[in-house]
Amino acid sequence: MSWLSTSIMAQRGVAHGIEGAHQKITIEDQGTFHYVYGPYATPVLEVEPGAVVTVETHDAFEGAITEVVDNPSSLLNFPFLNPQTGPIYVKGAEKGDALAVRIISIRPRGPQPVGTTCLLTEFGGLVATGDTALLNPPLPEKVKKVVVDEDGVHWSDTLTLPYEPFIGTIGTAPQIEAISSLQPDYYGGNMDVPDVAPGSIIYLPVNTDGGYLYLGDCHAIQGDGELCGVALEIPATVEIHIDLIKGHGNGWPQLETEDKMMFIGSARPMEDAARIAYRELVRWVAAETGQSESDAYMLLTMCGKVRLGNMVDPKYSLAAGIEKKYLK
Amino acid sequence: MSWLSTSIMAQRGVAHGIEGAHQKITIEDQGTFHYVYGPYATPVLEVEPGAVVTVETHDAFEGAITEVVDNPSSLLNFPFLNPQTGPIYVKGAEKGDALAVRIISIRPRGPQPVGTTCLLTEFGGLVATGDTALLNPPLPEKVKKVVVDEDGVHWSDTLTLPYEPFIGTIGTAPQIEAISSLQPDYYGGNMDVPDVAPGSIIYLPVNTDGGYLYLGDCHAIQGDGELCGVALEIPATVEIHIDLIKGHGNGWPQLETEDKMMFIGSARPMEDAARIAYRELVRWVAAETGQSESDAYMLLTMCGKVRLGNMVDPKYSLAAGIEKKYLK
Amino acid sequence: MSWLSTSIMAQRGVAHGIEGAHQKITIEDQGTFHYVYGPYATPVLEVEPGAVVTVETHDAFEGAITEVVDNPSSLLNFPFLNPQTGPIYVKGAEKGDALAVRIISIRPRGPQPVGTTCLLTEFGGLVATGDTALLNPPLPEKVKKVVVDEDGVHWSDTLTLPYEPFIGTIGTAPQIEAISSLQPDYYGGNMDVPDVAPGSIIYLPVNTDGGYLYLGDCHAIQGDGELCGVALEIPATVEIHIDLIKGHGNGWPQLETEDKMMFIGSARPMEDAARIAYRELVRWVAAETGQSESDAYMLLTMCGKVRLGNMVDPKYSLAAGIEKKYLK
Amino acid sequence: MSWLSTSIMAQRGVAHGIEGAHQKITIEDQGTFHYVYGPYATPVLEVEPGAVVTVETHDAFEGAITEVVDNPSSLLNFPFLNPQTGPIYVKGAEKGDALAVRIISIRPRGPQPVGTTCLLTEFGGLVATGDTALLNPPLPEKVKKVVVDEDGVHWSDTLTLPYEPFIGTIGTAPQIEAISSLQPDYYGGNMDVPDVAPGSIIYLPVNTDGGYLYLGDCHAIQGDGELCGVALEIPATVEIHIDLIKGHGNGWPQLETEDKMMFIGSARPMEDAARIAYRELVRWVAAETGQSESDAYMLLTMCGKVRLGNMVDPKYSLAAGIEKKYLK
Repeated sequence: MSWLSTSIMAQRGVAHGIEGAHQKITIEDQGTFHYVYGPYATPVLEVEPGAVVTVETHDAFEGAITEVVDNPSSLLNFPFLNPQTGPIYVKGAEKGDALAVRIISIRPRGPQPVGTTCLLTEFGGLVATGDTALLNPPLPEKVKKVVVDEDGVHWSDTLTLPYEPFIGTIGTAPQIEAISSLQPDYYGGNMDVPDVAPGSIIYLPVNTDGGYLYLGDCHAIQGDGELCGVALEIPATVEIHIDLIKGHGNGWPQLETEDKMMFIGSARPMEDAARIAYRELVRWVAAETGQSESDAYMLLTMCGKVRLGNMVDPKYSLAAGIEKKYLK
Repeated sequence: MSWLSTSIMAQRGVAHGIEGAHQKITIEDQGTFHYVYGPYATPVLEVEPGAVVTVETHDAFEGAITEVVDNPSSLLNFPFLNPQTGPIYVKGAEKGDALAVRIISIRPRGPQPVGTTCLLTEFGGLVATGDTALLNPPLPEKVKKVVVDEDGVHWSDTLTLPYEPFIGTIGTAPQIEAISSLQPDYYGGNMDVPDVAPGSIIYLPVNTDGGYLYLGDCHAIQGDGELCGVALEIPATVEIHIDLIKGHGNGWPQLETEDKMMFIGSARPMEDAARIAYRELVRWVAAETGQSESDAYMLLTMCGKVRLGNMVDPKYSLAAGIEKKYLK
Repeated sequence: MSWLSTSIMAQRGVAHGIEGAHQKITIEDQGTFHYVYGPYATPVLEVEPGAVVTVETHDAFEGAITEVVDNPSSLLNFPFLNPQTGPIYVKGAEKGDALAVRIISIRPRGPQPVGTTCLLTEFGGLVATGDTALLNPPLPEKVKKVVVDEDGVHWSDTLTLPYEPFIGTIGTAPQIEAISSLQPDYYGGNMDVPDVAPGSIIYLPVNTDGGYLYLGDCHAIQGDGELCGVALEIPATVEIHIDLIKGHGNGWPQLETEDKMMFIGSARPMEDAARIAYRELVRWVAAETGQSESDAYMLLTMCGKVRLGNMVDPKYSLAAGIEKKYLK
Repeated sequence: MSWLSTSIMAQRGVAHGIEGAHQKITIEDQGTFHYVYGPYATPVLEVEPGAVVTVETHDAFEGAITEVVDNPSSLLNFPFLNPQTGPIYVKGAEKGDALAVRIISIRPRGPQPVGTTCLLTEFGGLVATGDTALLNPPLPEKVKKVVVDEDGVHWSDTLTLPYEPFIGTIGTAPQIEAISSLQPDYYGGNMDVPDVAPGSIIYLPVNTDGGYLYLGDCHAIQGDGELCGVALEIPATVEIHIDLIKGHGNGWPQLETEDKMMFIGSARPMEDAARIAYRELVRWVAAETGQSESDAYMLLTMCGKVRLGNMVDPKYSLAAGIEKKYLK
């Protein structure tokens, strides 16, 4: 498996190939979704490290926006938003470990038009919100339904965008907190980083026995920052490989793609998300390559890569990375 | 009771004087403290609206820092910090209501020196932290134990500060979240606003049946911003009067003192806390006085008062207020 | 002179009482106002340290808003806003020194209604702006003209506010920059801190020969944060005493009132303004009292006082202070 | 010239091909460098629109760091940092126009090792600074000198990085301000966006007659955010083509590469830089394609691209863009 051979983390801890058992969580298996990341839920599935699991997720609105309406927010029932499938209990996972979740595939699931985006009052990157609370009148709400198929994302009669799916929200449970699935943080959650896509591995810190893996909120495509706050939301069928790395939990999520190694920080203001992501990366590069922190800091000044995940959630998410070829 | 006659909110909803039943929660009653604000705990006391309750709280370190040591953080067990007494279930409280908690008295409780402050690594307003993540070396840690008695806060041989006690952390449970007691937010929590003091009434939004009132983290004195992150922490005996205002829940905590009416916003960056507090206040003043929002906005430009609660917690807290005499 | 005897800074450097020469800058003397703080202007007056100067200032709109109109911004000619009187050249002032400017009096000047406030599009603390750039529609503009006389600020038929005048904008020239008078920074400028009022002394860093003191933008009253961005703007006659403290320039403006010593920080986000102000204060208290920085940091955690100047200018201004009685 | 044919802006205003006159500014022609962007300097060259100019720039330290020393900041003379060549007066340029500066080539100039980077006290993205003012001890300073030649950037014996040069600082003069060349803003300045590279066109607003184009601060390579604050600084010979677009000045710099159209926002906190850049882009896409702002906002939610320029300067710079193929 080439992904294993390119994985730096994997070389020192991931024990299991994808020959593990195949399991499944359908929407029916799930029953009630979860709207918080926490340890107070009952696992819907237990797996051994190495398992491949097919997970059905719903869209961020739990399917409530079925057609183009003028006031989509009237269809939503805050705080019951961004429904999550799970939690998945990973046997042997303990505080201090990392879950390594490889994303194998993401396929849209459901009748066309399967994709939904919309403008919601007091939500989004270019409007006043509950957090950036102003007196301006709101923008009008608006819904757009979009066909997503093998040819791509059919945005309009004249514009087809590529199908570039990823998992918007994925993470483990905090130890004692239960936090809205609208929020990203050190345990993952609603990061909305488009690189959490097929072919990538996300390493998530384990904070409680079993890890309690949740996921949902798949996007057919999203620009940097998820500007209006609602990407092209789809119900999806996600295939993941779940592995366990004993004793290698980081403070924040680490993301490995074919050619890059990244850390994802989530905070407000946005510079604090950037500082978190880059500090994690500086320390990891220093440890990985045997350089001093000062030298790693200088090196990343030359070749660090930043990707903005979201500028709309309760915390902003930003990934800082380095190309693997510079780690040799 | 003069506090009732001066209470604007009270005139339209607070039904009960302090002749209500007197009840008590001792440390022994409490047993295990809580470290999250959430609905998943079992109430330690049920009260009728109008009850007066004497509540014993522990200090923010649960008494772990008993003497001057070099490395206080080694004595702490994150995330089990800032222990909260409660929750108190208020009969009849439903989502959309407000709890009106009048603070009657706060007395230090325990052997001298009863007050503790300290510098902790990666915590505080003038150092790099986990949120503002930098590569600088840390400041050395440090502990100071302080006698607090009827004469005041005995800071040093030559300096006695006044005893100005308040409740650092008080709030209701979110509807489905369980959030660290280190954090303030729309439901209250670790706001660290010094005006939450004897003589004041704090109005907290009810998000779940019974409201689930928690409190803890009393301070013998604190400057604006709680600069190093640790005020003069004391175990305390707090006497409060709990009332219920049906259907008058605000989005954020409202605080009434003898002469001011305030709202407390909590957010990062700090300007967002200020915007929240002032937007709530503009809208409340407009509704209360029959002015337009624009007129209230202009009036508060002339006479708004701001008090910084904390510049150290996961969200910063700031109160924006107006003198009651300008509301006539 | 009691202000001198209460002045801590003065005890070690201010050489001259207010028996100095009395000089004057009228509007006619000034001719053209300045809209930047910089070294490229020609001084309108030269003074010896110790001079008392009566300075006429215009209001922030240079008198352009004479009546209640629907669209005040159409009367303004950006960037020619916030006109400043000066610069005043202080003989002997060199980089590294401080100017100590005592404010003796501020009187409104001109026909009634002499006070102006307004709501301007894309300007203010609770609306989207050029800095916090959003897509929301704007609030409508609005003007209010207000009589200010010996009885106070006649806000409405039923509400009279106190006359609490202060200088909104005062500072020295940067060494090589020329920065809009709408902005506050390390040299002073548009800080909008209400304590820059009669009875106070502001210590400003000298960055260039002569210091180049500018002032303007007097307010008849203003709440914390100058919420809508426009306080009660008045043309004024200001009497100041200008002194020079050789070799005692601080990094940021220091402000002394009868009972407090403060530093003013200006930055975005607001927490950075607070950090600047408090770091300056920690270091000054440590030096002044012979404590370590850690001890001063702990002391200010207990008794620091914060006043928000503005939450509307290109940088936010915030003062952090300590009561003088705690410095003994 | 393919760059012209791919230029959207050019199709409606850029009048002149690169057959214009070739002119030159050598270091000797320049004489004294400039350290502010402002209208108070004397132009070093006048050009007609369409001119090709070869400009020699110095490195950000004006060559003061010639070898590896322990305390590079002792060699620097603040505020005389980031020396700029220019200003160039563009005939016919008036407020409201745009300068279109195409970057043809950037070559290192001077003896090897020609590249310099360093860690400076209180400067950089992962340390406390004068703006984010903390009490932590500083990181040690450090210098690295690097050979840059046709093979690339010789970072170490085992690591050669690509030569990816760009102009760190380029812009026009504000109308009445003169602002440090360390700062970026609406007129350009120290943006440090790596796409300001050979093959790109940057459109800069003209604020004053002649535009007053300044440039300097070339980098041989830089990662996203310019993490430690000092990229690989080189003295350079830059060839640019300067054109004038009458009446098409934007509020903020626009940047066109072969396949993308971007806007660059500069502000603190970082989300405000992102909001500025994206709001400019939303409005430009709407105008360009005939969509409503709401539709452009939704489209950019799907396919907007963000590049972080700097997270270290007095304002952070961030570019938001869209691929040109989505504009058809």
